[in-house]
Amino acid sequence: MENKLSFQSIVEEEITIVEDRMRDQAYDYHPDLQAALDHLINSGGKRIRPNITLLAGKMLHGDTQSLITLSAAIELLHTATLVHDDLIDGSLLRRGIATLNAKWSPAATVLTGDFLFAKAANLAAEVCSIPVMKLFANTLSTIVNGEIEQLFTDRCNPDLDQYYRRIYAKTASLFETSSLAAAMIANSDIKAQEALQKYGYQLGLAFQIVDDIFDFTAEQDQLGKPVGGDLRQGLITLPSLLYFEQNPDNTWVKDFFKYKCNPSSSFIDPLIEEIRISDTIKQSLEIANSHVQKSIEALSIFPNTIYTEGLESMALYVTERKS
Amino acid sequence: MENKLSFQSIVEEEITIVEDRMRDQAYDYHPDLQAALDHLINSGGKRIRPNITLLAGKMLHGDTQSLITLSAAIELLHTATLVHDDLIDGSLLRRGIATLNAKWSPAATVLTGDFLFAKAANLAAEVCSIPVMKLFANTLSTIVNGEIEQLFTDRCNPDLDQYYRRIYAKTASLFETSSLAAAMIANSDIKAQEALQKYGYQLGLAFQIVDDIFDFTAEQDQLGKPVGGDLRQGLITLPSLLYFEQNPDNTWVKDFFKYKCNPSSSFIDPLIEEIRISDTIKQSLEIANSHVQKSIEALSIFPNTIYTEGLESMALYVTERKS
Repeated sequence: MENKLSFQSIVEEEITIVEDRMRDQAYDYHPDLQAALDHLINSGGKRIRPNITLLAGKMLHGDTQSLITLSAAIELLHTATLVHDDLIDGSLLRRGIATLNAKWSPAATVLTGDFLFAKAANLAAEVCSIPVMKLFANTLSTIVNGEIEQLFTDRCNPDLDQYYRRIYAKTASLFETSSLAAAMIANSDIKAQEALQKYGYQLGLAFQIVDDIFDFTAEQDQLGKPVGGDLRQGLITLPSLLYFEQNPDNTWVKDFFKYKCNPSSSFIDPLIEEIRISDTIKQSLEIANSHVQKSIEALSIFPNTIYTEGLESMALYVTERKS
Repeated sequence: MENKLSFQSIVEEEITIVEDRMRDQAYDYHPDLQAALDHLINSGGKRIRPNITLLAGKMLHGDTQSLITLSAAIELLHTATLVHDDLIDGSLLRRGIATLNAKWSPAATVLTGDFLFAKAANLAAEVCSIPVMKLFANTLSTIVNGEIEQLFTDRCNPDLDQYYRRIYAKTASLFETSSLAAAMIANSDIKAQEALQKYGYQLGLAFQIVDDIFDFTAEQDQLGKPVGGDLRQGLITLPSLLYFEQNPDNTWVKDFFKYKCNPSSSFIDPLIEEIRISDTIKQSLEIANSHVQKSIEALSIFPNTIYTEGLESMALYVTERKS
C-alpha cells in the first residue's frame, strides 16, 4: 500500500478526470455502447500508463489539460487493443471480470474495439501536436504488428530476441509512448525526451516480464485462468525460456519440443510445476529488476521533485506488485 | 467509358502513386500481411474517394504530395472498414473476389483491419494538419457508430430519416471528408470548404442510394450474392422503403412486417421481384440524381478548370455507372 500511496496519490485527481474523459467518449452514442465503455472502465486496471504520462508531463511543467487528454487517449488505445485481444484469444475473463466478448457477439466486440480506436485517435488529435499524433499512430502499428507476428510466426522458438521483440510490441511500446509523448507536450529538449523514452521503454519491459512471471506464480483464482496459461497456449515467456536453456535434457522439456510446443496433458502440468518451483522465477525477477533500475537511472538528469519521486516509486512498484 | 475517361484520366498518374503508397504500408512487416494488403489493393474498386480528394485539392492548388498522402490514408481507412465489415457480415465475396475472412481466420482478419486503421492514421498524421487529423478521426467514429447502430437498433423500421443517417455514416461521411480535407490542405477559405463539404456529402448519398438500387436490379453474378441481399438480411433501403410506403396492403409486404423483417422463403422472393419491377427503382434513381445535381451545384462557386470538370463528370458517373 505504501507504494500505491507514494505514486498514485500525486496525480490522483487528474486520474479521476482521465477516467471521466474516457467515459464521455460514448456520450451521445448508442446506450449499449455507453454501457460497454462503462463496463470496460470499471473493470479497471491500475492506470499505470496515465500515471506515467501525468507524472512525467507535470515533472516537465507540461500543460495539465493536454496531459489529461493524452492520458485518456493512451488508456483508450490500450483498452481497444485488450477488447480485440480478448476476442482473438477467446478469453472470457480479464482481472476476474467478464470480458466484452463473453457477453457480446463477435460483431459487437469487433465494432466496440474499432469505436475505441476511433475515440482514442480523436483524443490524440485534440492534443494538437503533430509529433504526438505520429507517435501515437506508430505505436498502434507496432502493437498490432506484434500481435500479427505472434499469430503468423512459429512460436515454438525459445529465442530471447524474439521474446523481447514481442514484449516491446505488446507492452513496452505504449509505456514508451506514455512517457515520451508527455515530454513532447511539455516541449522538452531532445535529452529530456530521450531520457523519458528510456524510462518508459525499460519500465514496460519490466512490467511485461513480471506479468509473465505471475502467469506461473499466481494462484488460479488470482489469474482467472489456469496457472501457466501462456505455456498451455504454446507461448514461451522468460521463465520457461530460461528453464529450457538450463534444463535441455529434462524429459518434459524434450516432450514439449517433440510435440512442437503443442501441450499435452501428459507433460504440461508437471512441466509448469517444475518451472514454478525452479530458480528461473527468481532469475526472471532479477532481469525485471535490472530493467527497473535502468528506468530509474534514466531519471537522474531531472531535478528531484515530487513527480520524479513518483516516477521512481512507480518503477519500484512494477516488480514489487502482487498482481 | 466516356465518363471514366473524363474524370479518371485527369489524376490517373497520382492514383497510381496513391496505390503504391498504400502497398508500401506493409513494407517491412510480415510477408503474410504484405500479401493480404496486395490482395485487398488488387481487388480494387474505382478509387472514387482518392479521385475526389485529388481533383478537389488540385482545383484549389493544394500541394500534390500532401493530397496523395491524404488520398492513401482515406482509401486505407475505407479498406480497413470493409475488412471488418465483411468479417461481421460473413461475406465471402466482394466485387466477385474472395474477401480476407474467406481465406483467413477471424483473428487474422480482425488484426489486419486494425493494422490498416493504424497505417491510415500514420498517413493522415503525415499530412501534418491538425484539422485534417481531427476530421479523419471524427469520420472513423461516425462510420463505426453507424455500424454499431445498425447492429443494435431495430432495423425493422421503414423510416427515411433512419435510412439517411445510415447511408451518411456508411458512405457519405467519408466522401465528405475526401473533399473537405482536400480544401483544408489547400488552405481554402470557409466558403470553399463548405462548398466542397456539400459536394462530397451529396455525392456520397447518391453513391450509396445507387448501390442500394443495384442490390435489386443487378444480376446475381454481378453482385456475387443473391439479388435483394439487403432485404434478405432484413435491411430496408430506399427502393424497399418507397415500395412499402406505396403498397402497404400488398400481401408480401404485410408478411414481411408480420415476421418483423425476418425474411421467410414463402414471401421474400416474390417481394424482391415485385420491388425489382416496380416504379420505386426509377423513383430511387431520381432521388439519387437530385443529390448528384446538388453536388454539382455546390461546385458553381469555383472557376471552370479541368479539375472542376472532372468533379462534375465524376458526379454524373455515380448515377450512370453500371456496377
